[in-house]
Amino acid sequence: MTAFEHAVAGLSPLDDEAAAEAAALHDRLVKPRAALGRLETVGIGLAAIAGACPPPVPEPAVVAVFAGDHGVLAEGVTPWPQEVTAQMVAAFCAGGAAVNVLARHSGAEVVVVDVGVAGDLVPAPGLLLRKVRYGTANLASSPAMTLDEAARALDVGADVAAAAVAGGARCLVTGDMGIGNTTASAALIAALTGRPATEVTGRGTGIDDITYLRKILVVESAVCRAADNGPLDVLALLGGLEIAALAGFIVGGAAARVPVVVDGVVAVAGLLVAAALAPACVGYCLAGHRSTEPGATAALEHLGMEPLLDLGMRLGEGTGACLALPLVQAAAKVLREMDTLDSAGVTGKG
Amino acid sequence: MTAFEHAVAGLSPLDDEAAAEAAALHDRLVKPRAALGRLETVGIGLAAIAGACPPPVPEPAVVAVFAGDHGVLAEGVTPWPQEVTAQMVAAFCAGGAAVNVLARHSGAEVVVVDVGVAGDLVPAPGLLLRKVRYGTANLASSPAMTLDEAARALDVGADVAAAAVAGGARCLVTGDMGIGNTTASAALIAALTGRPATEVTGRGTGIDDITYLRKILVVESAVCRAADNGPLDVLALLGGLEIAALAGFIVGGAAARVPVVVDGVVAVAGLLVAAALAPACVGYCLAGHRSTEPGATAALEHLGMEPLLDLGMRLGEGTGACLALPLVQAAAKVLREMDTLDSAGVTGKG
Repeated sequence: MTAFEHAVAGLSPLDDEAAAEAAALHDRLVKPRAALGRLETVGIGLAAIAGACPPPVPEPAVVAVFAGDHGVLAEGVTPWPQEVTAQMVAAFCAGGAAVNVLARHSGAEVVVVDVGVAGDLVPAPGLLLRKVRYGTANLASSPAMTLDEAARALDVGADVAAAAVAGGARCLVTGDMGIGNTTASAALIAALTGRPATEVTGRGTGIDDITYLRKILVVESAVCRAADNGPLDVLALLGGLEIAALAGFIVGGAAARVPVVVDGVVAVAGLLVAAALAPACVGYCLAGHRSTEPGATAALEHLGMEPLLDLGMRLGEGTGACLALPLVQAAAKVLREMDTLDSAGVTGKG
Repeated sequence: MTAFEHAVAGLSPLDDEAAAEAAALHDRLVKPRAALGRLETVGIGLAAIAGACPPPVPEPAVVAVFAGDHGVLAEGVTPWPQEVTAQMVAAFCAGGAAVNVLARHSGAEVVVVDVGVAGDLVPAPGLLLRKVRYGTANLASSPAMTLDEAARALDVGADVAAAAVAGGARCLVTGDMGIGNTTASAALIAALTGRPATEVTGRGTGIDDITYLRKILVVESAVCRAADNGPLDVLALLGGLEIAALAGFIVGGAAARVPVVVDGVVAVAGLLVAAALAPACVGYCLAGHRSTEPGATAALEHLGMEPLLDLGMRLGEGTGACLALPLVQAAAKVLREMDTLDSAGVTGKG
């Protein structure tokens, strides 16, 4: 059995009893009922994930940044050159990128995983060399990868999740890097939600009108070719390698019963793939933030998820999820550390 | 000169040059332009507040929870009895209330200030006994307090802010406790924004329809009586003591050039008062979250402020602002710790 198959087989239902206990505990805490809003819902979800009330604080956390390149760059969908992917991997390893700053701030460790960068990378501490292939093929003219490559990328993600949890992580955070990956994400989101390309394609890192129209056309035609395929085929047709790895990582985290905080549009594309392959993983995920990319909102609506933050961010790397991590941890602490009305000697409502 | 007058006199304009430097620095960091969205705006604001680029990380932070009682309870506007205010003060001192949990989580210290609790409180560590009077009078039938009492409550807040900054705080967070204070807040917000009582009055800690209608009527008639008065008179007419102290605290923080993270509806009522008395303080404030109370949104719209979080919270105490604090601190760290495109050796757009 592959690492991904193992994770899928290991998925268990959420613990409804622990969730009900957490909801009842919230109503006894020293506050009016439901006054902490979404923080209470998150706490109940953490209890369901951990199978315990109060739930453990989801820490330490590991942010895995999966990196891969995209053949679709040949279509001129972004002004950034391909070498930026490898350069950003080096920046992650040096600790000076946005995700490093925000992960440190939130007390999370960063692991960088080369699952498909176009060139050979210099080994570095915190960099896992797990390349499946040197970037995807151009999804506009051929399958982005073979079914076997898609399966291997899923395995990389599931493996990284299992290793992080074995190493002590009690919360996983998704990260991604790959010039061109908002195009692949938009294509996956269109294919898996049934929404038209115009509704799910965004401007990524900031592109002009002509590039944007070209990107929509690329997405639209790729999605047409992917119609009537199962989710693994769709993944192989549209890519990317880091998105496949993200899907495996999410399922791996869910199988280990730890919460997975999901970042922006690339991460939710991975989550859609994961949900299609192993629906039970979704309950273990929290949407960290609402990316400005329209595809992110389309995917979250499809999954019935509401993001924690909405700060107009569109960087990826895991930055939005890292910012949301303290909120998730706070939700557990509320259930663990707050006094009850009784223990605090506070009179109830008249 | 009183502490509040001293603070008003000490207000200085924001540093536009430092803000411009921060905006320019953002455009050189190793990310696409503006990709961190709101986090960039906050960072620019912190530079303007501190007069430095990159701005210092706003830590350590002090949450001041101002507590006071409200004579308007006689009108039956809430099912919670008055003694809960003092009981909650005891819970804050014991460390088991929501604000304690969330302040600890965000690395902030909690200070509790009795500015107007109806009974005498037992001294406790972290509790400042600065009572101006034993609760307000019933704003439905008389001025909530005298002008002199309002001025003294403003002084308490300004004093607490100055002392916190003198003690090392580099960020202030507003907190509040007072059974009945959403009624006083709604009245202040209606009076200071010109919005009708129906639009700014909410259900506070959760009240039934009859109580809600009664609350709206109380607010409406109090606002009518307060018409055509200056802001200090409006404050004295409508109360409460903790809201006056919050206004003083905000102006005190602004005078000390530290960011003030403002909580929910009671805090933004205090901010409206502060803005009316000393408009230059507003630029030093960040709205931590959007309370579910409609008055909070009305006040923030009036001030042109957008909250950082929107999590359906309505607890007060400073809980929403404590949750937002890590976002504010992250915004400074982005400017301080991220590499530039040049230093990271990352190629710009083609």
